[in-house]
Amino acid sequence: MKKNEISILGSGLIGSLLSIYLKKRGLDVHVYEKRADNRKGEYKEEGRSINMALSERGWKALEKVGLKEKVLPLTIPMYGRQIHNEHGQTSFIPYGKEGQAIYSISRGKFNQLLMDEAEKAGVNIHFEHRIEDVDLRNFEITVDNPESGLEKISSEVILGADGAYSSLRNAMLKQVRFNYKQEYISHGYKELSIPPTADGEFAMDPNALHIWPRGSFMLIALPNPDKSFTCTLFLPFEGERVCFENIRDEKDVKGVFQTYFDDAYQLMPQLSEQYFSNPTSSLITIECYPWMLNKSLLIGDSSHAMVPFYGQGMNCGFEDCMILDSLIEKIGTSAWELVFAKFQKKRKPDTDAICQLALENFEEMKADVADPKFIIRKKIEAKLHALYPNDWIPLYTMVTFSSMPYSEAYALGKLQQKIMDTVMANPLITQNWDKLDYEDIIDQLDKAKAV
Amino acid sequence: MKKNEISILGSGLIGSLLSIYLKKRGLDVHVYEKRADNRKGEYKEEGRSINMALSERGWKALEKVGLKEKVLPLTIPMYGRQIHNEHGQTSFIPYGKEGQAIYSISRGKFNQLLMDEAEKAGVNIHFEHRIEDVDLRNFEITVDNPESGLEKISSEVILGADGAYSSLRNAMLKQVRFNYKQEYISHGYKELSIPPTADGEFAMDPNALHIWPRGSFMLIALPNPDKSFTCTLFLPFEGERVCFENIRDEKDVKGVFQTYFDDAYQLMPQLSEQYFSNPTSSLITIECYPWMLNKSLLIGDSSHAMVPFYGQGMNCGFEDCMILDSLIEKIGTSAWELVFAKFQKKRKPDTDAICQLALENFEEMKADVADPKFIIRKKIEAKLHALYPNDWIPLYTMVTFSSMPYSEAYALGKLQQKIMDTVMANPLITQNWDKLDYEDIIDQLDKAKAV
Repeated sequence: MKKNEISILGSGLIGSLLSIYLKKRGLDVHVYEKRADNRKGEYKEEGRSINMALSERGWKALEKVGLKEKVLPLTIPMYGRQIHNEHGQTSFIPYGKEGQAIYSISRGKFNQLLMDEAEKAGVNIHFEHRIEDVDLRNFEITVDNPESGLEKISSEVILGADGAYSSLRNAMLKQVRFNYKQEYISHGYKELSIPPTADGEFAMDPNALHIWPRGSFMLIALPNPDKSFTCTLFLPFEGERVCFENIRDEKDVKGVFQTYFDDAYQLMPQLSEQYFSNPTSSLITIECYPWMLNKSLLIGDSSHAMVPFYGQGMNCGFEDCMILDSLIEKIGTSAWELVFAKFQKKRKPDTDAICQLALENFEEMKADVADPKFIIRKKIEAKLHALYPNDWIPLYTMVTFSSMPYSEAYALGKLQQKIMDTVMANPLITQNWDKLDYEDIIDQLDKAKAV
Repeated sequence: MKKNEISILGSGLIGSLLSIYLKKRGLDVHVYEKRADNRKGEYKEEGRSINMALSERGWKALEKVGLKEKVLPLTIPMYGRQIHNEHGQTSFIPYGKEGQAIYSISRGKFNQLLMDEAEKAGVNIHFEHRIEDVDLRNFEITVDNPESGLEKISSEVILGADGAYSSLRNAMLKQVRFNYKQEYISHGYKELSIPPTADGEFAMDPNALHIWPRGSFMLIALPNPDKSFTCTLFLPFEGERVCFENIRDEKDVKGVFQTYFDDAYQLMPQLSEQYFSNPTSSLITIECYPWMLNKSLLIGDSSHAMVPFYGQGMNCGFEDCMILDSLIEKIGTSAWELVFAKFQKKRKPDTDAICQLALENFEEMKADVADPKFIIRKKIEAKLHALYPNDWIPLYTMVTFSSMPYSEAYALGKLQQKIMDTVMANPLITQNWDKLDYEDIIDQLDKAKAV
């Protein structure tokens, strides 16, 4: 039987980057991927979340293996949220300080680049190898390939970078004392698109993430290098108001878009066609523990799939790779179980925190950002950060533009939220926000932190 | 292909009672059970939770199908908790009013009686039929029998009474938007026994549930008709103090029992032998939703396995059967999906509540009952109940001696808890508890309920 040193399940973004990290440590790395190699023949996206937003944690993990410069040309910086109201008016809320941006990137192209780099480094990616079984007693995986059929492969180490529906996790689920939770939110999503204008330009400002917040639902749009935008419509699956269940024909689609997203609707000539041909997908949160069993480990979405509303799923998975690599650097490759035990212990509180933040940010995106007070709140926090850059770092900044552990950002964010709730309760805040006693707010935070 | 009207997975306590209910509605009922028929040959218990405590909800469900009188002779009433301290001294805390008891019954004998009754009623129980696959698209189950091999069976309705590791639930888990959670507690359990005395009598009072609460761990004992007691030792799996991991040899077992449970130890001549031959089992809580997919439904532990600390797992499962039957009575058997939809909607908040109460009661059993103040608290609540029988019903009584929906009992219990916490904060409560303004406590509860 074939014996691998390292078998990685899944050649997605996380599996590919992880394989590069491990190859650079001198290991023999094999990646098993059920899909065909999409770098051959005509490239086709597969109807799932096409645009990602790269931010600090992701960049840092790419930089450590020398890939930052190669990835940058594939991205478009987005400096803030462009909010569209029902009348087509827009307002811009910056994400951070001047120059700070998150970077729109196509999942497909990015994944191809990472697979190219992995193979260049010497990683073996086995495409069209579906995982049929993971046997954790004998540490054997059974793969199925259309050409060679079923094959058993023995491995010293098995890493599950195989996403929310992980085969490795399914094998762990049958083990005793494996805690597991999968939870779907009531909303689903559908991808649509805004093509370039007739003269080949972006139809809206490309350097922003566009949001049409409508309380119980929303539309967003991210720019692509081909000057189109990928839009994502988030609606409840069922209900009394606007929901997927109630949109049955072209008339319904047009009705919803004309009523709620008219400025976007004017830019979407293929709306109805796309609406009925693209799938409606669901959104899952996964939490589990432990992440390891002997020399196997879950990493990325397989251990902590999150809803996409903080734009951190990929960044968090990349950070997983970097943290795992640091532990391998420190401990070596002769004590995998120790490496994995330290990894899960350190990382679990952080991934719990970002999963929770991602759920909470959905409320902010679909409802709060439409509130004029929300903009005031963001301005106050930005001013606090400008005046006291080390003492008040807005939550979004801690998560997106720093590498502070997510759990610390979460805890600090809760303290800030309490204080800001009091500040915003001031009935004159809209007029007075610029003249607040900012030092006093910082004092309040210091006191809260000391408790 | 064989086509059943009703296929029930599992002939355990819930599956057997459910089959009786459905047979009485004139349906064609087939039960598939992976184990052999344990009524044939010598009976052997299987090392899992042997003693159950039947209470009001269970009795009511048995009574509705005329089985109460047949089950009663198999039971031993337990009127309260007999608490054993480290010095072997005991104190008795009644469960309810005089005459109110929970009833110890052996799982094995009880299950045999229910299977006998099911077969008498015309139910077909297929033993040694392991479920290999549940195909929810075609509504086919694949069973494996040592004699006849693999067989596919088509069903109009599939009911999963197949417990915490349910095959039906595993099939549902792969469906989209199935929310699922499995969580193990840090403690495990091991069954041991106290045999009858030399002159063939019970070694302790048989009409009580015995508890040796030791803070972070405990021992309990329930009486059996053969005058023995079944003991269950609950310990953390690992840790620094007393835990399963740290008990490695006979000396360790004796050390722990002599130190913490000496009075029980004196009654356990086969302790070490049993300790090392009996398995250490884990304790799981399962929550999921929805419970149905088309005409399939999860029932009992398969949808809401709980830890055993409120003695409600079986009672709750029996109540499930009765509630499902009431809906069938009302709606009929031509609209199964409507029956199941109403069942899950009504029942889920209640099973969530009892799962949570079961977790919380572990704290009470292993720690609080040893506190002298706990006894005072129970006495105050008993007196409140005696003075105002309709206005203050202790939580344990609502859960155990009534059929009030668990979710209502839970909510009311939380209000009572808050009020009792204030009452108990009185520094002179030990002396004054009998002279409190009881009417005022009732007023407080009424006010809290009105909010």
